[in-house]
Amino acid sequence: MRMVDLIISKKRGQALSKDEINFIIERYMAGEIPDYQMSAFLMAVCFRGMNRDETAALTMALVNSGEKIDLSPIEGIKVDKHSSGGVGDKLSLVIVPLCASVGIPVAKMSGRGLGHTGGTVDKLESIKGFRTEMSREEFISNVNKSGMALVGQSANLTPADKKLYALRDVTGTVDSIPLIAASIMSKKIAAGADRIVLDVKAGSGAFMKTVEEAEELANVMVGIGNSLGKKTVALVTDMSQPLGREVGNANEVREAIEILQGMGMEDVTTIALTVAAHMAVLGEAFAEFDSAYEGLLDAIKSGRALSKFRELVTLQGGDASVVDNPDLLPRAARHIDVMAPQDGYVFSIDAEKIGVAAMLLGAGRKTKEDSIDHSAGITLHAKTGKKVSRGDVLLTLHTNVSDWSEAEKLALEAYVISPEKPAPITYIHKVIG
Amino acid sequence: MRMVDLIISKKRGQALSKDEINFIIERYMAGEIPDYQMSAFLMAVCFRGMNRDETAALTMALVNSGEKIDLSPIEGIKVDKHSSGGVGDKLSLVIVPLCASVGIPVAKMSGRGLGHTGGTVDKLESIKGFRTEMSREEFISNVNKSGMALVGQSANLTPADKKLYALRDVTGTVDSIPLIAASIMSKKIAAGADRIVLDVKAGSGAFMKTVEEAEELANVMVGIGNSLGKKTVALVTDMSQPLGREVGNANEVREAIEILQGMGMEDVTTIALTVAAHMAVLGEAFAEFDSAYEGLLDAIKSGRALSKFRELVTLQGGDASVVDNPDLLPRAARHIDVMAPQDGYVFSIDAEKIGVAAMLLGAGRKTKEDSIDHSAGITLHAKTGKKVSRGDVLLTLHTNVSDWSEAEKLALEAYVISPEKPAPITYIHKVIG
Repeated sequence: MRMVDLIISKKRGQALSKDEINFIIERYMAGEIPDYQMSAFLMAVCFRGMNRDETAALTMALVNSGEKIDLSPIEGIKVDKHSSGGVGDKLSLVIVPLCASVGIPVAKMSGRGLGHTGGTVDKLESIKGFRTEMSREEFISNVNKSGMALVGQSANLTPADKKLYALRDVTGTVDSIPLIAASIMSKKIAAGADRIVLDVKAGSGAFMKTVEEAEELANVMVGIGNSLGKKTVALVTDMSQPLGREVGNANEVREAIEILQGMGMEDVTTIALTVAAHMAVLGEAFAEFDSAYEGLLDAIKSGRALSKFRELVTLQGGDASVVDNPDLLPRAARHIDVMAPQDGYVFSIDAEKIGVAAMLLGAGRKTKEDSIDHSAGITLHAKTGKKVSRGDVLLTLHTNVSDWSEAEKLALEAYVISPEKPAPITYIHKVIG
Repeated sequence: MRMVDLIISKKRGQALSKDEINFIIERYMAGEIPDYQMSAFLMAVCFRGMNRDETAALTMALVNSGEKIDLSPIEGIKVDKHSSGGVGDKLSLVIVPLCASVGIPVAKMSGRGLGHTGGTVDKLESIKGFRTEMSREEFISNVNKSGMALVGQSANLTPADKKLYALRDVTGTVDSIPLIAASIMSKKIAAGADRIVLDVKAGSGAFMKTVEEAEELANVMVGIGNSLGKKTVALVTDMSQPLGREVGNANEVREAIEILQGMGMEDVTTIALTVAAHMAVLGEAFAEFDSAYEGLLDAIKSGRALSKFRELVTLQGGDASVVDNPDLLPRAARHIDVMAPQDGYVFSIDAEKIGVAAMLLGAGRKTKEDSIDHSAGITLHAKTGKKVSRGDVLLTLHTNVSDWSEAEKLALEAYVISPEKPAPITYIHKVIG
């Protein structure tokens, strides 16, 4: 088997066998296939795609390149969720205690934020004392004890995915559906999930800008899951504007608490409950979606979900008093209101611009090495569809930096105010699988 | 300017500017753009192509990466020819003295053979004493004195083409028309040609297997030549079977002498005269093609063309007595006749298989480091369309190796004998420009 022949096969649109895909990933990781052959191959994949079998084989080759987490010491069906990333996406903070409150074990690994999107680990670390690093034993014992644990991603999972991603990033080969799908699914499978719910975002704040693209990615990922015996459901959800009202770290924790108190905004509450309900069905806590949704809503109304969040914070060393008194969360020194420049309807809010503005205020990282300010962020007072008058506050910037002009400019640019009323936003575009 | 952005532009099908293409080639040669970015870019070019301006810009970027030969000390219009390579292609041996005999200066650089195709330099070196290495001064003085010189390719021409080709070879990015066209044209332009005649082969022995592909390549190369002010004519000629009767080095010299004596086979004589006639028109020795063809035929009939060949051999230190007594050329120890296994018409002769068989007999190189046997080769006694009976000699293998079984097998496989008479072969498929 020669790599150049496999490149030519893919270039001609032929499907590669499982053995051929394993050969490519194994020899690449062994340093026997050079980057210049791999990048040519990846570009050919961008043009020719991969079929379902190839994509599943690639996923498993990535999984097999590193450590696989064995969650078998945890009783029950381990359901994981993945979000394709967005702005104001605090869903994991809500869903982990929510699912645990109805008896589904959630052993969750999460990442840090980069660029315009945030990360669950960063958000939780805005709670004083909260630890997201723990031994494998503690992780499993916590799940068995309280039904949940939330840790940072292990460095040893899917190293081939990391190496490939670094190459794709500099060779213009990022935007390939099978490559994205295999990358996401390999991480979930290596992290030990039995079943998976995927929240694929579509819109201005997401990697997939249209519902059609997001649906295609969702379909491919469900195909991979099913091919590999990991039952998978994918939702295509709205990211045409930031999710909920808060963007940042401490303020997203605050909003997550409100959602768990039953006082969250409609968009973020609906999506959180929908994702959690699919997890609850896959985890066999409920027989079907509607009863799961009702059951989870009841867990919120009864306070059980919020109790579970308090338990999670305590268990991982955090100061649980913030749950009842969110004002104890870090608070920025400066709060700048940004006003509507004209009368009209909020026609759209570019989520990516809001995400970048929040990053500039200190809430995010441009590069992996940057540190973040947990107190920085943005509060949106007006969301898409709202009628505003000139001078109404659209949003508030929270920051400790002294020059917020660029962030203010971007945040204002993100808002399109129009005399025309926009169509109502659909929160859940598609359910697949 | 960032390479990754240029890769993405090309991937999306956008045209690059001249500055962008220069950036790519210059930074690649400076080692600032790594191979893995270049190979991804080349793969994107394979899928998206390049327009005429891009291809011309790439050609000049390749030319500018190295030395450019200044032929201005030679008086008159310098017309060069290029053949895309084939089996039994001894045209340069014929065309150089033929053009010189009608007053067109030919300052020719030629290559060595590799794989199943031969090279003019190797063929000439089968003449005892013939030197294909000489100083720039001697090269130019010979052309000014006798109207012709034929040397090996300088190592300093188009280094970027060499570096790119090495990368394309291992990354499955060889078969891209604009990349092939820019590579060929850059070498001709760096070698100092004012005007160019391209002989693009189509068929089993050529890189371009169909007339359509060859025509596309021819069109792109004519476009480059015209864009860069180098008047160019391209012919698409037949390589569906080996050209003429002889394949090898000494035996191709023998056949070239026969052609110059007016005793060549129809296919090779017609193509040689057609290529030379286009060169003669571009070189303004004749006003139009028909009179040029007649004039060149007359140069053969009168013996002037053969005299010029004798002069070339003498001038470059070779033993000119071979011109009148070709039996002085190297001769192999073994001659093996291969017989027709059945009655019928020669329906086709796979030129590539004949080329590989000749290589196995010692006439060619598998790798650049191999040495060759000038006396080895193949004589074809029956060409496409000939009626043969079982036991008739189809071809004779000439070799000094003791095991010719593989070559014999391949040579026999190359012949398709059929009860059906094939359509007559067209020698010149297209004339472009």
